[in-house]
Amino acid sequence: MFDGPSPAGMTGPEIPESHPRYESLLTRHRIEDGVDRGLTSKQGLIAQGRGEAFDYLLGEETIPSADDAERAAAAHLQRADHPVLSVNGNVAALVPGEIVSLAEATDADIEVNLFNRTDRRIERIAGHLRAHGAERVKGQTADGRIPGLDHERAKVDADGIESADVVLVPLEDGDRAEALGAMGKTELVVDLNPMSRSARAATVPIVDNLIRALPNVTAHAEALRGASPAELDSIIESFDADAALAAAERRIRDA
Amino acid sequence: MFDGPSPAGMTGPEIPESHPRYESLLTRHRIEDGVDRGLTSKQGLIAQGRGEAFDYLLGEETIPSADDAERAAAAHLQRADHPVLSVNGNVAALVPGEIVSLAEATDADIEVNLFNRTDRRIERIAGHLRAHGAERVKGQTADGRIPGLDHERAKVDADGIESADVVLVPLEDGDRAEALGAMGKTELVVDLNPMSRSARAATVPIVDNLIRALPNVTAHAEALRGASPAELDSIIESFDADAALAAAERRIRDA
Repeated sequence: MFDGPSPAGMTGPEIPESHPRYESLLTRHRIEDGVDRGLTSKQGLIAQGRGEAFDYLLGEETIPSADDAERAAAAHLQRADHPVLSVNGNVAALVPGEIVSLAEATDADIEVNLFNRTDRRIERIAGHLRAHGAERVKGQTADGRIPGLDHERAKVDADGIESADVVLVPLEDGDRAEALGAMGKTELVVDLNPMSRSARAATVPIVDNLIRALPNVTAHAEALRGASPAELDSIIESFDADAALAAAERRIRDA
Repeated sequence: MFDGPSPAGMTGPEIPESHPRYESLLTRHRIEDGVDRGLTSKQGLIAQGRGEAFDYLLGEETIPSADDAERAAAAHLQRADHPVLSVNGNVAALVPGEIVSLAEATDADIEVNLFNRTDRRIERIAGHLRAHGAERVKGQTADGRIPGLDHERAKVDADGIESADVVLVPLEDGDRAEALGAMGKTELVVDLNPMSRSARAATVPIVDNLIRALPNVTAHAEALRGASPAELDSIIESFDADAALAAAERRIRDA
């Protein structure tokens, strides 16, 4: 994986699931397809590469502390009054169907929110999500603001992220992760770098590959659908963000 | 750096050198400009991201074992009968002037060699290098072959890489790095991942950012210009590739 591009002929959807690098090749196929569709930016490709390196050092698996974080995230989403899943270009390219499944399992809104915002790219991403089953995709009204950010980067929907109590922000940039935290929102961040500002700003940092993390959050959310508020609160309270970050960093450094 | 794209307005050539992230921002500017110029591929952007992550873990500095490797690489280039510097899209985007300076300091040929070879991209890269002062750029004749690789990936110039005794291959893919090694060539590899097959296949693995490594190899080459063959051989013999890889991995894992 670190030795160059995928083997010739192995980047398309015809990758056999038995291939030892199936997940990595599928990921790469989806992200490149995302560029061709105008979903993923140049910055998104570079971010993908950074993620690959951290995932390689993590062992390319969901470590126990990440599974704990994914369960805590599911509990937060089920406990929320108004949960929103924030989607950028890489998220849409990598896990469009998985985002829709998680939104359905948790009655969450989906909102497109981009670092480099253009109406054209937002429309493309929203269309891609609708093609994967999303009924409604927010992010185009842009009548709300996140305080403390530049004009374009501050834009959100008033009835979406602005009024959310719990926000899942996969692959978020550090400035915005911190600004959302400063608004008092419960922030669930998926980021493969446990040292990043995004991960450190999160209520629940999930140090895992999005392609493994999202289905696992959904599975936990489905299992917790009938749980009482007290049960959900107990799961939420027992999660220790600092311990999870330390466990992930140990795994990366000492593996 | 891991928290998302560069700050607004800081990606262009107007980045002040005093900026704490000057080198990182300049690198990112050059690689994105490389995409706009048709030099860098999608795979190249992902590879750039992987490199950023490893560089971050290394501390974004030339560690002592990398400086040793850069000096050994300079000695190999000065001792060679026919040294060749292999250039791909990312190398051309990131360090075009630095490649030309190193070629001049070591009387080396420059040859464009791409993982995803197209005549159009080779011509663009060669033109970019000529614009930075390269007199002759090889790679378009493609009348030589590297045994053991697929047809397109095997192509090299007969009077270039095929007949070289020492080849500098920055950011090479693992298959080709191993195939070049199997041809008996002395291979100098620049790769930020000390666990990669490229780094492990190298006679001299340089675990450092290209943007720091190349000027340092050039500086060592200039200092060694008057050295005797015995002095150069002594530098070459005293370099321990396994120890250098182990030192880099320790730095990444235990920092």
